Amino acid sequence: MSKEKLNIAIVGSSGYAGGELMRILLNHSMAVVTAITSEKSAGKPITSIFPHLAGLTSLVCEPLEPDAIAKKSDFVFLALPHVTAQEAAFRFRKLGKKVVDLSADYRLSDPALYETWYEHAHQYPELLKDAVYGLPELHREKIKKASLIANPGCYPTGAILGLAPLMQEGRVDLGSIIIDSKSGVSGAGRSPSLAHHYPEVNEGLMAYKIGTHRHTPEIEQEFSALAGKQITISFTPHLVPMNRGILTTIYAKLSFQADTAQIHALFQAYYNNAPFVRLLPIGQFPNVRNVRGSNFCDIGVYVDPRTGRVVVVTAIDNLVKGASGQAIQNMNLMMGFNEAEGLRFAGIFP
Amino acid sequence: MSKEKLNIAIVGSSGYAGGELMRILLNHSMAVVTAITSEKSAGKPITSIFPHLAGLTSLVCEPLEPDAIAKKSDFVFLALPHVTAQEAAFRFRKLGKKVVDLSADYRLSDPALYETWYEHAHQYPELLKDAVYGLPELHREKIKKASLIANPGCYPTGAILGLAPLMQEGRVDLGSIIIDSKSGVSGAGRSPSLAHHYPEVNEGLMAYKIGTHRHTPEIEQEFSALAGKQITISFTPHLVPMNRGILTTIYAKLSFQADTAQIHALFQAYYNNAPFVRLLPIGQFPNVRNVRGSNFCDIGVYVDPRTGRVVVVTAIDNLVKGASGQAIQNMNLMMGFNEAEGLRFAGIFP
Amino acid sequence: MSKEKLNIAIVGSSGYAGGELMRILLNHSMAVVTAITSEKSAGKPITSIFPHLAGLTSLVCEPLEPDAIAKKSDFVFLALPHVTAQEAAFRFRKLGKKVVDLSADYRLSDPALYETWYEHAHQYPELLKDAVYGLPELHREKIKKASLIANPGCYPTGAILGLAPLMQEGRVDLGSIIIDSKSGVSGAGRSPSLAHHYPEVNEGLMAYKIGTHRHTPEIEQEFSALAGKQITISFTPHLVPMNRGILTTIYAKLSFQADTAQIHALFQAYYNNAPFVRLLPIGQFPNVRNVRGSNFCDIGVYVDPRTGRVVVVTAIDNLVKGASGQAIQNMNLMMGFNEAEGLRFAGIFP
Amino acid sequence: MSKEKLNIAIVGSSGYAGGELMRILLNHSMAVVTAITSEKSAGKPITSIFPHLAGLTSLVCEPLEPDAIAKKSDFVFLALPHVTAQEAAFRFRKLGKKVVDLSADYRLSDPALYETWYEHAHQYPELLKDAVYGLPELHREKIKKASLIANPGCYPTGAILGLAPLMQEGRVDLGSIIIDSKSGVSGAGRSPSLAHHYPEVNEGLMAYKIGTHRHTPEIEQEFSALAGKQITISFTPHLVPMNRGILTTIYAKLSFQADTAQIHALFQAYYNNAPFVRLLPIGQFPNVRNVRGSNFCDIGVYVDPRTGRVVVVTAIDNLVKGASGQAIQNMNLMMGFNEAEGLRFAGIFP
Repeated sequence: MSKEKLNIAIVGSSGYAGGELMRILLNHSMAVVTAITSEKSAGKPITSIFPHLAGLTSLVCEPLEPDAIAKKSDFVFLALPHVTAQEAAFRFRKLGKKVVDLSADYRLSDPALYETWYEHAHQYPELLKDAVYGLPELHREKIKKASLIANPGCYPTGAILGLAPLMQEGRVDLGSIIIDSKSGVSGAGRSPSLAHHYPEVNEGLMAYKIGTHRHTPEIEQEFSALAGKQITISFTPHLVPMNRGILTTIYAKLSFQADTAQIHALFQAYYNNAPFVRLLPIGQFPNVRNVRGSNFCDIGVYVDPRTGRVVVVTAIDNLVKGASGQAIQNMNLMMGFNEAEGLRFAGIFP
Repeated sequence: MSKEKLNIAIVGSSGYAGGELMRILLNHSMAVVTAITSEKSAGKPITSIFPHLAGLTSLVCEPLEPDAIAKKSDFVFLALPHVTAQEAAFRFRKLGKKVVDLSADYRLSDPALYETWYEHAHQYPELLKDAVYGLPELHREKIKKASLIANPGCYPTGAILGLAPLMQEGRVDLGSIIIDSKSGVSGAGRSPSLAHHYPEVNEGLMAYKIGTHRHTPEIEQEFSALAGKQITISFTPHLVPMNRGILTTIYAKLSFQADTAQIHALFQAYYNNAPFVRLLPIGQFPNVRNVRGSNFCDIGVYVDPRTGRVVVVTAIDNLVKGASGQAIQNMNLMMGFNEAEGLRFAGIFP
Repeated sequence: MSKEKLNIAIVGSSGYAGGELMRILLNHSMAVVTAITSEKSAGKPITSIFPHLAGLTSLVCEPLEPDAIAKKSDFVFLALPHVTAQEAAFRFRKLGKKVVDLSADYRLSDPALYETWYEHAHQYPELLKDAVYGLPELHREKIKKASLIANPGCYPTGAILGLAPLMQEGRVDLGSIIIDSKSGVSGAGRSPSLAHHYPEVNEGLMAYKIGTHRHTPEIEQEFSALAGKQITISFTPHLVPMNRGILTTIYAKLSFQADTAQIHALFQAYYNNAPFVRLLPIGQFPNVRNVRGSNFCDIGVYVDPRTGRVVVVTAIDNLVKGASGQAIQNMNLMMGFNEAEGLRFAGIFP
Repeated sequence: MSKEKLNIAIVGSSGYAGGELMRILLNHSMAVVTAITSEKSAGKPITSIFPHLAGLTSLVCEPLEPDAIAKKSDFVFLALPHVTAQEAAFRFRKLGKKVVDLSADYRLSDPALYETWYEHAHQYPELLKDAVYGLPELHREKIKKASLIANPGCYPTGAILGLAPLMQEGRVDLGSIIIDSKSGVSGAGRSPSLAHHYPEVNEGLMAYKIGTHRHTPEIEQEFSALAGKQITISFTPHLVPMNRGILTTIYAKLSFQADTAQIHALFQAYYNNAPFVRLLPIGQFPNVRNVRGSNFCDIGVYVDPRTGRVVVVTAIDNLVKGASGQAIQNMNLMMGFNEAEGLRFAGIFP
């Protein structure tokens, strides 16, 4: 335990999001990880699960016992599978801890919607009301006051940031939105499966869960709130043979006459104070390679005069801005730290 | 020269399309390659450029001299850069040879449109009138009678096959079509450039030429012909870190009430006699890995009841069905061979 | 069942080797697959397991019941895990079928050695005596007369072909042999595991089972037989982020004064009649990309005047020359077909 | 210019090594980059060449004019092609600057050897005498006092660290050393070429420059110095389809009876104070994925009782410990900073 730094627990540390929380927090000046949990690796050093961390930490996994964990930490990141995070969040909140939940359990404010898409009833609808959707570029002030953050999904982060500046009546035809996303394989998690076995993925490319992916209602919830009316989108995720990164290509009909420069100016104004959004110059489009390992979301915009559509492309690292980096960004805001603390590093290229 | 088989010349044999023509024609029972050209490799055996062909051919590259080439061959594949193919096609046609041109030079029937998109005037507008767009699934009968085929572009092949069955008034909102394509890197050709340097591409993903790619008018030409009216589409190509394959995701608003089964049935009827279209069962979607190295186009369809959109996904190997395989399919039709001759092989998986 | 062609059963058809047998045999003029087995996929069409074969076969998996399978086939390929192939080979031999076993079960002629390395006793030591090690370049004549072939392992194929021409007293220091092999991931099979989960493998590279890999005694057995004395080698396999291919780099001290040209000549003489060995010109070295999907083994040799060592590099496709292609090559020899029947195709590049 | 921090110039900033210097130095507490040069990109912001650095630096490239650069900086990293770095080092030394040269120009202490392998005479043999070979694990004390450091090559770094603890008479047979290295493609630099064009590299694997690679004399120089006698090695580099990383597999005959535990203990003692060498536990071997983006060199050792050989495997990131990270480690030592300053970060996995 540190007296000078915020003591952090990572609950569910053996997955890729847990590994990234560890990696990034190693260099955070205001926080330090003091407890990590993993049921299947309890008793093992984290470096046996993540050898890339060898020499940098001596933390050992322990089982998820909230009381014990709470004694070692003031702030909890939950990197558990959905459904199981419900109770963990409840327990740690009851123990007075601030919580950032990286699962989907507290993202949909309507418990009925949660049940429809996740096929489980939500056991803590009261707590759900307290949860704030942790996309800092949209909800910075609410996040600062929150004690339970629902950290956004990886696809929704790239999608929502890509269209938020235009999500109001009069800017785009709200029924025309199409979101075509392409993700690296780490987004599917660390559990082996035939679908993510190396020779099945490499030199392959596919769409999956067309129109039925669980991130769809999450995107619609945020767009609807921005637009002030219920919105339905087409969302198609794809699996790309690379480790990290989500590229999202978004199409919408403009409701008014505008060229690329005007739309670009709208984005610039919208993200003026967002330290992790990099709006690219007109004529340039993002590449996931430029955000690999970093917390940036790169955005490019184009208005097609032939079709009257705006095309927005966003790139994030699904494990950083799409998960662990954003979780730390939320922690920074909740704790009154500088929003960018511990996150001011470049991605790795090549 | 063979007396029993059709003698083939490949003009421009050092690029990937040339290599694929060689590879596939090695096992064609009715045709044999008797001449190959390459300016920069003239005098060198083709196996010095394509070592994977070692032991299977002893052909030597020669310079492009139409008279000399014409003496050795009855049928010519042009695998030249666009603009330069214009004259080559003209010369070989004048020498009485049947020609399949793999470049873009004879694809757009309107020379003004060609000039707009390719920034060169078309020198042979008369010959352009004779050219048939070589997509067998749409133009089989015309191809059989043609002596100059404009072999379709790789993106247009995947895009057009994906929506042709629905391209008539009353089926989809003709203004709502969005085509989001993802291509492997071989589609960019064999000339080195920073953009396709390995470390720049691997673990990267980007959109490029949004709304401005030259394959756009080609797709629009075919869709417009099918629909009987001028159509404008949104087309976005992406570069994916893999060697081969194009996955195309197509979105359109249905103009009538239909479910997936009905749309699936329309596709089944449309491609009933197409030996290289594999319509996947309902609920399945294509993966480029399953067509790698083969001439198949795999298609999956889905109607999203939430949005009223149809989503079609197609997968091709850009070098086979998207280039050389389709060129041979066209040759088969032009020569009265079985359409599938030399092309009945599975792709390579994994 | 075909009356004109050899009827083939593939026992264990759901792994990568089974898939390759299917793919290649589709275009074999003298043989046809008439039965396939898979316990876990019994009752399912093979195309549900291998969608790349869709449209080319309608075979359905059945359980492994030797009597039933034997009624449908005259020749059996066993693509089962080691240990389990022991009995299957015995059963099919007893039913009078010729068998090529792709597992390791009949490769080591000494049952004690088998037990040491595979940690199971061999149940059919009598049958083991009948088995011929199916490396055609070394044992062509024996294979022609055999009815049970032990198809070589993938690593041994590349290693043995790389040094066989030098494996006699007086050519190399028999104690100096080092074999450093690098394999694509399909060599590890189709069962998902964390070690072969895409994000764990991609952008990674490691050695494994240093000095302890089970292919070691197989290489030593063949080298010892060639040299006429017991040989011990250093063998290190590595896992490379690619689907297919094994590159093997072999080092040995020359026992006599020789330059590259002389060693090259020895190789040329040795492989003069081998249709699938491509000895590269002096100064060139193989690349697995040039054998991808083909049955070739490419070989390059170099004598280092500084060290007196010969360095040989070989490249094979681990699933073709390293497994299924070689199995078919063996079948061709056993049946009196042309050795190259069905295997005269180029690899796929790029 | 900063008054509190060391002002750094990066000469040759548009290559991958230059980019990595920029990336890492962004978070160095004692140093700041104040000048960067690139002839072809003079006048352009570095972020136009390296978009992953956008938002983190506003540096603009300038031409290489030593006087102008010297006014802006106290310490110079040369990331120029070999031969051209010769004079640059001379000029900056004359201007009183400390220099770390990442090229090969000052690595070989014998100018005749340089001329033999690099085919250019060395113009500054006097300065060559001042240069210290910048491998901190071997030459830490000399580096502290040096003002010109020859930063080691990427292959030599992995090779030398892998065998240094054993390089003395009596430990290994000095004539038996074989070094088989496998590198990612960024090691070949950022200039496009057919050999490194994406589709030529991906799914490929090859050895190159067998016995003739220019890093050979560099390894031999260091080994010879350690052993106290002239040593000749076999060195084979390979090109692996991945962006970063070098895995080096080293073989040598032990000269004394020892098991893995004893050799492991020797390594442990040797690297006891080396902050960037991670000796893996017995039974574990390194994977380049675990050092990606970091300055670590991971090492695993194994003694093969069957052959009496020791096998050592090392993994580094060729751009970090193999180039820019090591250069900064050298700077830290030269400037009296903590050796690990700015380099205490984990690699990126997955």
